[in-house]
Amino acid sequence: MREGRGTLSDPARLLISCDDRTGIVAAVTGFLTARGANIITLDQYSTDASGGRFFMRVSFVGGGDPDELEEVFGASVGERFEMSWRLHRSGVVKRVALMVSKYDHCLFDLLWRWRRGELPMEVVCVVSNHEDFRVDVESFGLPFHVIPVEKGKKPEAESALVDLVGGQVDLVVLARYMQILSGDLIERLAAPIINIHHSFLPAFAGAAPYQRARERGVKLIGATAHYVTEVLDDGPIIEQDVLRVDHRATAEELERVGRDVERVALARAVRSHLHDLVLVDGTRTIVFPG
Amino acid sequence: MREGRGTLSDPARLLISCDDRTGIVAAVTGFLTARGANIITLDQYSTDASGGRFFMRVSFVGGGDPDELEEVFGASVGERFEMSWRLHRSGVVKRVALMVSKYDHCLFDLLWRWRRGELPMEVVCVVSNHEDFRVDVESFGLPFHVIPVEKGKKPEAESALVDLVGGQVDLVVLARYMQILSGDLIERLAAPIINIHHSFLPAFAGAAPYQRARERGVKLIGATAHYVTEVLDDGPIIEQDVLRVDHRATAEELERVGRDVERVALARAVRSHLHDLVLVDGTRTIVFPG
Amino acid sequence: MREGRGTLSDPARLLISCDDRTGIVAAVTGFLTARGANIITLDQYSTDASGGRFFMRVSFVGGGDPDELEEVFGASVGERFEMSWRLHRSGVVKRVALMVSKYDHCLFDLLWRWRRGELPMEVVCVVSNHEDFRVDVESFGLPFHVIPVEKGKKPEAESALVDLVGGQVDLVVLARYMQILSGDLIERLAAPIINIHHSFLPAFAGAAPYQRARERGVKLIGATAHYVTEVLDDGPIIEQDVLRVDHRATAEELERVGRDVERVALARAVRSHLHDLVLVDGTRTIVFPG
Amino acid sequence: MREGRGTLSDPARLLISCDDRTGIVAAVTGFLTARGANIITLDQYSTDASGGRFFMRVSFVGGGDPDELEEVFGASVGERFEMSWRLHRSGVVKRVALMVSKYDHCLFDLLWRWRRGELPMEVVCVVSNHEDFRVDVESFGLPFHVIPVEKGKKPEAESALVDLVGGQVDLVVLARYMQILSGDLIERLAAPIINIHHSFLPAFAGAAPYQRARERGVKLIGATAHYVTEVLDDGPIIEQDVLRVDHRATAEELERVGRDVERVALARAVRSHLHDLVLVDGTRTIVFPG
Repeated sequence: MREGRGTLSDPARLLISCDDRTGIVAAVTGFLTARGANIITLDQYSTDASGGRFFMRVSFVGGGDPDELEEVFGASVGERFEMSWRLHRSGVVKRVALMVSKYDHCLFDLLWRWRRGELPMEVVCVVSNHEDFRVDVESFGLPFHVIPVEKGKKPEAESALVDLVGGQVDLVVLARYMQILSGDLIERLAAPIINIHHSFLPAFAGAAPYQRARERGVKLIGATAHYVTEVLDDGPIIEQDVLRVDHRATAEELERVGRDVERVALARAVRSHLHDLVLVDGTRTIVFPG
Repeated sequence: MREGRGTLSDPARLLISCDDRTGIVAAVTGFLTARGANIITLDQYSTDASGGRFFMRVSFVGGGDPDELEEVFGASVGERFEMSWRLHRSGVVKRVALMVSKYDHCLFDLLWRWRRGELPMEVVCVVSNHEDFRVDVESFGLPFHVIPVEKGKKPEAESALVDLVGGQVDLVVLARYMQILSGDLIERLAAPIINIHHSFLPAFAGAAPYQRARERGVKLIGATAHYVTEVLDDGPIIEQDVLRVDHRATAEELERVGRDVERVALARAVRSHLHDLVLVDGTRTIVFPG
Repeated sequence: MREGRGTLSDPARLLISCDDRTGIVAAVTGFLTARGANIITLDQYSTDASGGRFFMRVSFVGGGDPDELEEVFGASVGERFEMSWRLHRSGVVKRVALMVSKYDHCLFDLLWRWRRGELPMEVVCVVSNHEDFRVDVESFGLPFHVIPVEKGKKPEAESALVDLVGGQVDLVVLARYMQILSGDLIERLAAPIINIHHSFLPAFAGAAPYQRARERGVKLIGATAHYVTEVLDDGPIIEQDVLRVDHRATAEELERVGRDVERVALARAVRSHLHDLVLVDGTRTIVFPG
Repeated sequence: MREGRGTLSDPARLLISCDDRTGIVAAVTGFLTARGANIITLDQYSTDASGGRFFMRVSFVGGGDPDELEEVFGASVGERFEMSWRLHRSGVVKRVALMVSKYDHCLFDLLWRWRRGELPMEVVCVVSNHEDFRVDVESFGLPFHVIPVEKGKKPEAESALVDLVGGQVDLVVLARYMQILSGDLIERLAAPIINIHHSFLPAFAGAAPYQRARERGVKLIGATAHYVTEVLDDGPIIEQDVLRVDHRATAEELERVGRDVERVALARAVRSHLHDLVLVDGTRTIVFPG
């Protein structure tokens, strides 16, 4: 990560997971307090008090030099409890690439929220497989890259994407990007990827969810924001929401209502991720409030 | 149907479906007005203005002798537009059998609503495959019948059920009745059957939906009230609802939250059915407001 | 009204209110059918079947020359039932002026929906008392006018507004326009005005609703879209919605959550108005589904 | 408190409030860990990191003799940070008196939830100013007391209530008890009192909220569960919820919909209180998730 829009007064965040046992909270908070840090929020969760997995997020101000804090924490508390952990430093914002195909509602909802200061991120670029939104994206002062995905040439397109953003971003957001990412691409991007699926997963995974929802006669239209894994529409769910529809809703109407629920679900998921509120536990997520 | 709790001032309801073409609304309302009826509500829906299917519900007071009205309507308007239609007469309530297994929250929610006058129905009896709720059901002044479903003797149990309620009821409600009904039973009951499934169908159709919802890490817990067809959990959906849960929710917690959404979804579906607000269009339902 | 984005295949809409009595629906639908019109949707509502007020909206295609239809309908059915009525012709869209002050989320939400084709309207202009959003509004290809409201010179500002849009628009939308409109201005604008208030009215009418909501410790943050009348925040409510918040929500957080509920509530209200789905009944509205 | 339905494996809960300063979390968790306690959940909130008020709830198992733990904690950590604090011991449930007048939906919803094990409480008795629900309450095996409130004899009725439950209960729940409690009674009961108000407070405080909601034409019907203070309908809000209604809703319909939202809001508030999840901060509540 590098410096971005964050301010120095933003709290630092310590994210931890380890096997649950007695004394973790006391050890972590004792460590921070001994270094003069002031704990702002603390959230923790254990899958099972005996034999479960423990997850924790502490935000704090102060605590001295972050390099030193990292080193000492790792060598003491981290090692003692065999923790997976990371420190998100105060005043740093995540670098994000946004990807889009032919539907713009999620993309511009994110950009407007970003401009209003709702989403603490640096938008590195917007990538699309079509030219359509160049002017609108550039009016936000952002680079817009087109990587077309031609039939039979997907590997070339994926390589171009890796060349463009690989190693340059902390997060990729698929804001209605309609190409399936290969497992190889996911690995090479080396950053979490959040996708918005326009149904209440696991109902209607795959293509054409609105049409299938209409055929099945469901009474609620949903959207699901999730991390992308190799298996299509199967990654850990971060956020879901639904809106009510009725028999009168045409396919066009379902799309219109769906747009409202998609953009809200995606924005919440991205916001939670940017604030380091989401921890992954296998196929599930822990999303701390924030 | 026979006389029940309805009052003579309740409007009569005329339910219609036919191929859509010009003049249906005018013909029906003209017919009723010419007989001196006063239209209280009118709802209509067409799947497609050209070549679609047309559905209509008219409630009205007055209109003279219902036998004669039925005969004349059928011979004139009904025949002219090749309608499927039925008249629900003023002051008549539907006869209902409620079925339950081991979870009582839906059953007693329906019974309390019935006692408070929210559900215009005559509860003919409560049927269970267990003895558990006899005392509580009988305290409502209702007959409670136990038809155990022993291993390998399901046909006998189904026959006993047909003997008990077949032809006696206008509706069967499965208020968390956990036995699968055979296609043969569905046919012999000769009445619509409403079931409550404890998930947001089509997600988690089949057994153990809460456990599977928890494993998949969904963020909303749902319930679906639907008509029963031969294919398990696949009938036309009448009502769905969801409640928000998070990572902390244990299996027990999901059940607790689920109970609240199940009983509300089922009660709304039953109420809509009792007021003749639900029309079936293939795999989907039209639910008029009411 | 003049021709805008509507298409010739859009249904015409007939809006009616009159004292309730027998035969209205039959008379209206009989009239339309006799002229060869095909009724697409019909919604009606009576405040009381005996002695109440009757409201109706019929959409239809066909029916011949609209000038002649208007004349004949008025002279026959309209006169007979002493109706207030109006015909919204097929293929016509409403002309709208949008007004904004310092918060842009509602304005740009409406403009994006308009661009996507969700809102059938012609945006005549955007008016503000500040320069802030000129570039962004003009990038939509729309005129942006600034009418500053200086201390003690409100009448002059209101006159300038009347000069600009009076008689030119069918609707004025206050998309977080923070000046109170005088009764005189409301009258001279001679068009319905929709405002979005950032609370669940009648709670927190007046200024600073978020701050007061926070002080009162409410658990839901609301927004209310309503027609403007002379009495501040007291006009007929068209749409309301809420989102859940908790004790952690700071004033800034309430504003952020509030923005999501405001823009959705306002967009729904404007959409209902543009489709002629809203009828006013004294202090209340009838909003037909659509 | 005395022993009730709780089980010995239930975690103990430590509730704390004090002025915010560095080191509180470390001190409390360090204290518990040093005594061999295992922290199950920890929630904390500060109104302001500098100069604010700090609130905390820790649940834990183990930690040795509770009497001794209380004594040592108070003398060390409690004193050092000038805390208000209390320990809710493992395996103890709160004693509750339920009060009701003429509407039974909230009362029986609570009783059914209690019977199903959703609400960890000992119901000491049900008190009403009417005889109506004696049989139904007694069928739950609970004492039912009638204390009529005759015109001009309210003080006598209030004294009878104090004689009956004063000092005997940890919580009083007004489950649609329609008498206003005097400040004197509130003080003499010496226990928290939770009321359910059938509106979205502060809208429609006072009498006849449904009727006023209908007149004002609101689009959402709400309910508010709050602690009772001397000022009517003004105490700290614990939980609120709303359901959507439309113009068709009659007064009777609003009551029906309102019943569903009232009973859910009240049940959630009571559940949160019973689990010691609610802390009062002046006119507001902090409700930790649980």
